[in-house]
Amino acid sequence: MTTVIKNGTVVTADLTYDADVLIENGVISEIGPNLKGDEELDATGCYVMPGGIDPHVHLEMPFMGTYSSDDFESGTRAGLAGGTTMVVDFCLPNQGEGLHDALKRWDNKSTRANCDYSFHMAVTWWGEQVFNDMKSVIEDRGITTFKHFLAYKGALMVNDDELFASFNRLAELGGIAMVHAENGDVVAEMTAKLLAEGNTGPEGHAYSRPSQVEGEATNRAIMIADMAGVPLYVVHTSCEEAHEAIRRARMQGKRVWGEPLIQHLTLDESEYFNKDWDHAARRVMSPPFRNKQHQDSLWAGLMSGSLSVVATDHCAFTTEQKRTGIGDFSKIPNGTGGLEDRLPMLWTHGVETGRLTPNEFVAVTSTNIAKILNCYPKKGSVLVGADADLVVWDPKKEKTIQASTQQSAIDYNVFEGHHVKGLPRFTLTRGQVAVHDGEIRTQEGHGKFVAREPNGTVNKALSTWKDLTAPRPVERTGIPATGV
Amino acid sequence: MTTVIKNGTVVTADLTYDADVLIENGVISEIGPNLKGDEELDATGCYVMPGGIDPHVHLEMPFMGTYSSDDFESGTRAGLAGGTTMVVDFCLPNQGEGLHDALKRWDNKSTRANCDYSFHMAVTWWGEQVFNDMKSVIEDRGITTFKHFLAYKGALMVNDDELFASFNRLAELGGIAMVHAENGDVVAEMTAKLLAEGNTGPEGHAYSRPSQVEGEATNRAIMIADMAGVPLYVVHTSCEEAHEAIRRARMQGKRVWGEPLIQHLTLDESEYFNKDWDHAARRVMSPPFRNKQHQDSLWAGLMSGSLSVVATDHCAFTTEQKRTGIGDFSKIPNGTGGLEDRLPMLWTHGVETGRLTPNEFVAVTSTNIAKILNCYPKKGSVLVGADADLVVWDPKKEKTIQASTQQSAIDYNVFEGHHVKGLPRFTLTRGQVAVHDGEIRTQEGHGKFVAREPNGTVNKALSTWKDLTAPRPVERTGIPATGV
Amino acid sequence: MTTVIKNGTVVTADLTYDADVLIENGVISEIGPNLKGDEELDATGCYVMPGGIDPHVHLEMPFMGTYSSDDFESGTRAGLAGGTTMVVDFCLPNQGEGLHDALKRWDNKSTRANCDYSFHMAVTWWGEQVFNDMKSVIEDRGITTFKHFLAYKGALMVNDDELFASFNRLAELGGIAMVHAENGDVVAEMTAKLLAEGNTGPEGHAYSRPSQVEGEATNRAIMIADMAGVPLYVVHTSCEEAHEAIRRARMQGKRVWGEPLIQHLTLDESEYFNKDWDHAARRVMSPPFRNKQHQDSLWAGLMSGSLSVVATDHCAFTTEQKRTGIGDFSKIPNGTGGLEDRLPMLWTHGVETGRLTPNEFVAVTSTNIAKILNCYPKKGSVLVGADADLVVWDPKKEKTIQASTQQSAIDYNVFEGHHVKGLPRFTLTRGQVAVHDGEIRTQEGHGKFVAREPNGTVNKALSTWKDLTAPRPVERTGIPATGV
Amino acid sequence: MTTVIKNGTVVTADLTYDADVLIENGVISEIGPNLKGDEELDATGCYVMPGGIDPHVHLEMPFMGTYSSDDFESGTRAGLAGGTTMVVDFCLPNQGEGLHDALKRWDNKSTRANCDYSFHMAVTWWGEQVFNDMKSVIEDRGITTFKHFLAYKGALMVNDDELFASFNRLAELGGIAMVHAENGDVVAEMTAKLLAEGNTGPEGHAYSRPSQVEGEATNRAIMIADMAGVPLYVVHTSCEEAHEAIRRARMQGKRVWGEPLIQHLTLDESEYFNKDWDHAARRVMSPPFRNKQHQDSLWAGLMSGSLSVVATDHCAFTTEQKRTGIGDFSKIPNGTGGLEDRLPMLWTHGVETGRLTPNEFVAVTSTNIAKILNCYPKKGSVLVGADADLVVWDPKKEKTIQASTQQSAIDYNVFEGHHVKGLPRFTLTRGQVAVHDGEIRTQEGHGKFVAREPNGTVNKALSTWKDLTAPRPVERTGIPATGV
Repeated sequence: MTTVIKNGTVVTADLTYDADVLIENGVISEIGPNLKGDEELDATGCYVMPGGIDPHVHLEMPFMGTYSSDDFESGTRAGLAGGTTMVVDFCLPNQGEGLHDALKRWDNKSTRANCDYSFHMAVTWWGEQVFNDMKSVIEDRGITTFKHFLAYKGALMVNDDELFASFNRLAELGGIAMVHAENGDVVAEMTAKLLAEGNTGPEGHAYSRPSQVEGEATNRAIMIADMAGVPLYVVHTSCEEAHEAIRRARMQGKRVWGEPLIQHLTLDESEYFNKDWDHAARRVMSPPFRNKQHQDSLWAGLMSGSLSVVATDHCAFTTEQKRTGIGDFSKIPNGTGGLEDRLPMLWTHGVETGRLTPNEFVAVTSTNIAKILNCYPKKGSVLVGADADLVVWDPKKEKTIQASTQQSAIDYNVFEGHHVKGLPRFTLTRGQVAVHDGEIRTQEGHGKFVAREPNGTVNKALSTWKDLTAPRPVERTGIPATGV
Repeated sequence: MTTVIKNGTVVTADLTYDADVLIENGVISEIGPNLKGDEELDATGCYVMPGGIDPHVHLEMPFMGTYSSDDFESGTRAGLAGGTTMVVDFCLPNQGEGLHDALKRWDNKSTRANCDYSFHMAVTWWGEQVFNDMKSVIEDRGITTFKHFLAYKGALMVNDDELFASFNRLAELGGIAMVHAENGDVVAEMTAKLLAEGNTGPEGHAYSRPSQVEGEATNRAIMIADMAGVPLYVVHTSCEEAHEAIRRARMQGKRVWGEPLIQHLTLDESEYFNKDWDHAARRVMSPPFRNKQHQDSLWAGLMSGSLSVVATDHCAFTTEQKRTGIGDFSKIPNGTGGLEDRLPMLWTHGVETGRLTPNEFVAVTSTNIAKILNCYPKKGSVLVGADADLVVWDPKKEKTIQASTQQSAIDYNVFEGHHVKGLPRFTLTRGQVAVHDGEIRTQEGHGKFVAREPNGTVNKALSTWKDLTAPRPVERTGIPATGV
Repeated sequence: MTTVIKNGTVVTADLTYDADVLIENGVISEIGPNLKGDEELDATGCYVMPGGIDPHVHLEMPFMGTYSSDDFESGTRAGLAGGTTMVVDFCLPNQGEGLHDALKRWDNKSTRANCDYSFHMAVTWWGEQVFNDMKSVIEDRGITTFKHFLAYKGALMVNDDELFASFNRLAELGGIAMVHAENGDVVAEMTAKLLAEGNTGPEGHAYSRPSQVEGEATNRAIMIADMAGVPLYVVHTSCEEAHEAIRRARMQGKRVWGEPLIQHLTLDESEYFNKDWDHAARRVMSPPFRNKQHQDSLWAGLMSGSLSVVATDHCAFTTEQKRTGIGDFSKIPNGTGGLEDRLPMLWTHGVETGRLTPNEFVAVTSTNIAKILNCYPKKGSVLVGADADLVVWDPKKEKTIQASTQQSAIDYNVFEGHHVKGLPRFTLTRGQVAVHDGEIRTQEGHGKFVAREPNGTVNKALSTWKDLTAPRPVERTGIPATGV
Repeated sequence: MTTVIKNGTVVTADLTYDADVLIENGVISEIGPNLKGDEELDATGCYVMPGGIDPHVHLEMPFMGTYSSDDFESGTRAGLAGGTTMVVDFCLPNQGEGLHDALKRWDNKSTRANCDYSFHMAVTWWGEQVFNDMKSVIEDRGITTFKHFLAYKGALMVNDDELFASFNRLAELGGIAMVHAENGDVVAEMTAKLLAEGNTGPEGHAYSRPSQVEGEATNRAIMIADMAGVPLYVVHTSCEEAHEAIRRARMQGKRVWGEPLIQHLTLDESEYFNKDWDHAARRVMSPPFRNKQHQDSLWAGLMSGSLSVVATDHCAFTTEQKRTGIGDFSKIPNGTGGLEDRLPMLWTHGVETGRLTPNEFVAVTSTNIAKILNCYPKKGSVLVGADADLVVWDPKKEKTIQASTQQSAIDYNVFEGHHVKGLPRFTLTRGQVAVHDGEIRTQEGHGKFVAREPNGTVNKALSTWKDLTAPRPVERTGIPATGV
């Protein structure tokens, strides 16, 4: 049983050309003119692109005795509906829990995934066990990317010495460091102060973590990563201050990547000033939405290459869950959806406007992160031998985003009412047609875990440079015989 | 008659993988394991990479009644010897000369080329004929890149209004603007002043055009290109000031590329302070060599992507030609060689040190410029269907650069005595093995002209954005009936 | 006949303290407690500050066969009404006219001034006479500041080589270079293009000279001034791009000052989108008003010291004069008023908001420019021996700005309807009480010309540094015997 | 008994003019021509300037069971010898010690001072007592400046939440925050790593705290200060990264000052690579010396105003004390001398070269810090009523710095062999002639404590702005009735 995508234009990060794509056993077996297959998908007028990879999702994430409402089934279904064919979730160990124990919980949850997925590991505490487990998590489980929270004091946050220790360990093991960059000490104090002053509404969430709080933490993480000699991936870069820190690091030759979210690229802080509490609370996420100047900065970062990946931080809570925070914004569960909307929103506001070329669109939604994660070209490419994770993109297809027709399990959509142009005609996950011209045909449990090798090309280059420039003792003859 | 490259590792800007490469009729016909061909090239231990593209050479360039000493034969031979398989020369019309008339001269010279080549057109004067010729040069001759000199007052230099007119025309025609960015007015005045003060030696050349003179002109060209809505390529970016202007533009989403030269990346201004006049004069080029901080800036630009292409500005004059400028540095012919040394020098100082990954090396020596020039993937790739312009790179091969063994026609080498590690084992130009394990087998006249399409993907995106944001008149009811 | 200001708080750029101020013969004769004088001015609750100095006005400026409508009488009257006690006008020679001939015309016009004044000289063309006249203008007439227009192509604009020649001359004579920084070539082309496209309204004026056009010219002037070794004063810095260029220069130790206007600090581009043609046209000036981000940049510049002086570019045209440009924005006379409103607007939006301290207010409205112009402490200070150019500032006094009650000769005010808090109770020009608690008591012809010495302290320091770091020839033995 | 300084030129931050200065009872009583006094000091050919203020010294500082070797007597004697007439020391409470208890120890030590002095208070731990004591220390003791160490982990270092709490407290009380900005976590880890690797020599000290470690901490402190709404003074800014963070903050209108040391302006890291252990160890201080680019950055900061004050961090240890660290750089006592050399070194390398004007010299050595500390014009001025803390500066006087002739109690001088031009002819402390043409006439115990008022003008402005822009709750009608 083979599938062929006919009459489309292949668009990758690298190339644009007309060709059919033949798929056998979930893998691309041939690319060229006039191919035949058992099943034909008509891509006339469409772009055949690598499926989107969303490297930043939280599915069925434990939270205050409940869970984020999209699990691996509905989350990946939403992703496929929007052209995304791989997601990467964050495994979050409890305090004191071993990394492998935490992974068991994540393994269980992810069995229902409709598309392929991988995990990042979070370093939520520090100790000998974590230090030891890191090696086997990388080498045995193929999880090479480790996230550190500089925020969420008293919960997920790690201190600078723990951060430095973990980064050093990653440098040694050939892993990649990730950070959620907001200064947790300041956020905690600001939160307390605002609540005490009666700023209890959702806008208080934004007040408690202004852009400079993110900029500072980003800058700090960059310095520590550079001292440790490890590549750094900054998640959800939302503002000019953080972007500036990343640009400044890159212009010094440091290996740092930034990841804006589609929400921060297209929505702004005025959402929090909405008179409707529910409206505002549904948009509560960290970092919060920013203003237009910050948006301009993020777009320019995508255009110039100083920012590398567009993600969602998909972490969906229902309105009912959000209402936990009535009277105290700090109790509003943090997170918004976006998995289904990332690609259409980015195409509409990026490619349709001329800010991004179609190739750049593929780069920032799929290929760049596949390379960073070291699962390219298995993922993120349209090449013979690669997994047939593909989206057939119809640039003329339009819709207005509505919660009522979305795949996500929640009752609203932060992009409600936004009109998009550019949508999937077909989405294929390892060759299985999960979206067929508007019809959802996902298969629960179809998704497989994607293991990844450490010591990618950037790690190797960085280690070489760090060895070359390492401190060396001065040869001295004149050391006095005795000290005091 | 087919050729196969066996047992190598294919390294492109995009990918690294083990495969054999089969070539038929000058084109790559298959890539994969266990390929067979009539001729076998053993690439064991080597990287099979796209041949280098040098987008900035001046071969047999007319100068003061003589010519630069490397012509299309010796120049391309030197290129092939160093792994470069395509060069782009600059067609320089005389004052008042039509663009097509100038092209005829360049067509004549280039018939002897050993490898493929293309031309940039220079806009050395402005008038209706130039305006008109630009269209046919682009559409009929496939020359889409137009260079403008902001320096060389009284000769090649154009003024700001001419620059703006030409840039507007290019935006309309889907071309790309290029600039030599130094403030020619200031250089001319400084030159006169220095000579008058007795600063007549080669170091006076460097004094007459410090880095800020380049930074200013770069900044100016960027503004004018943005006002015209045309992508801009800045040749021989040599300093932090120019790089800063480029970075600043890119961080605003402008479409600007910078091109450092291998000379500026590895040599510095101390060369001009050499007590030996010949030594100093041989290094006279514009822009001149800078100091270590400028070098660090350029390297970081390559690492971060704010600079895109490494070139040579190969324009070789013999010591005898250089001596024209004894007693007056302004008469020293501007230019140095580099075609044979670009790739080995960049590999040695870039990849061996860990500053660049091998993929980044391919990107900046070949693939990026192929995309900018819009001749990718015919050039700059290792893909089925692409021209077999390939270099089989032996990372263990070493040598010390010496004029006595070089291909270039001149009697010295600015890299004399530099030790390099990483050299071609084979170089193929459209399948013809021009370098075979140290033996030069070039075929004069083998090279063909590479025509290029206008309106590449970046042009299209930029035009879309400029249309979207174009000034629009305010609808007014209240215009007073009469003026004064 | 002596005057004493009683019970006030003296506020200078340097100091804040309670003291009475005694004035004799137009000069401050004593500062201290319990002073007595023939006339007593009650400054209870007020600040006694140096009167404002507006270094950028155009009074009775020739324009298209007519003149700007505020002359030295009404202009200085407006200034005094708002607390400004000295103005500096620009002497504008016609093409080919000698500098002294032009000065005669300015001498004639200025005889009616109500307060002291000085002139800047404009370099509107270049030639031997200008070169020669510069010396006597500086040494005999005490005019040390020379303005150059990079805009107004075909009229006032000078080219880069003329600019460099003039800057070199100023460096030699100990003068200070000034620039109107907009790229005149681009403005001219944009103007023609916009008009051709039907963008004929006042908003077309803003479209024709966006902020980057100013940023470019500022950057260029800075480079040229640094090459010449002359301090540079950039008039009407209106935008982040220009401010960025100034900051960048200063952070390299260059001697550059920037001058935002009160209009750009408080009004924005939305004025040009007003549906009423007259409203928009009345705001036409160069550079045009910008957006809020540019305003934020200018304010931060005043706070941090990267911008030095707040001026007005007062050049008042009546609505009738403005209407010359109906149907063609390029014919709208450029200029707005502001002399009466500068201090109250800056106090209201600067000191009342906490962005500026009162001392910083004095610095940017008076003292800094007095030092730059080298007429400090005669002007810009409250010191014994200084001219009694003083404003007694009532921080509680409020009004709404209205053309109907203004001193200026024109029929509107660009700040119409703006509420200000902080106004003069008294203004004294060389001891004469020109404003007495709301009553205007100016004396036509009271004002005197203020001559200034060249070679101020900054010139001296800069010359020392430039001499120390000047290019020096390499001592060579090995110069070949003969050239070609 | 009166003293008059005759025939000099008064040079202040604000003014330069010829005048005699009359002193009565330690205070300037008259400035003007032809003054008479009991004692005459001939200032012919000299500048009469405010005595230097060194806001950063550690005299008789407790350290590992011993003390820094210059105490208030020898330290202030060294200062006076070099033209410095006021020092500010840091009161360092022990862990858990109340601020007033610590002050008692400092009060005791300072009784021997030869010139006036003040204290900064250090916040070395955090708790209710510190919170409470801060109020009385400010209001009762006139100590308004509070230093926080981001380095010296396990000893003086405070964490971010403590920093924020302390900064908030200072904002409330009208104080000023100070920071020693190096990331203590990273320094501690790097130190351990270097020692483990055998990098035990003095150069290891520099390796353990590279410039980016300082840049990070500076950036962090700035963010936290801005969130708290308190002005920030960054001590010993030694590098471009820290300066960049300060510039960036200032260009956003933040109230931040940076203080380079004379050592960092004139000495570089090559000192640590000296083959002689003693030579290198004597230069060990934190931050360590940097390279030439960092020096250029600091000089440009002084020229442009982005850096405000030149200090010494005078903390003198003998060679014998330094040798405690043989075999372990982390045990080398941190600190160098400089009190006697600050003014001559800065004059020589600043004013003599043309980088600074004489007025700027006074600003950065005296007046700026007097204003920041809020003890101006009592200190830092030449005004009637001000303390007669004066230096009569002879710009022609020269010497070569030698430990053998210095006032400091230690056996070496980090500027040994440096030639200076520009030295005090006389230094007066509250009118007492402590240095008389080469002769030292200091009076032990002459110095008095200088109390200072909180809530200076910058505090007031900043508070106004922060109040104006404080977060405000959204008025909502639509809050759902109940949460979950």
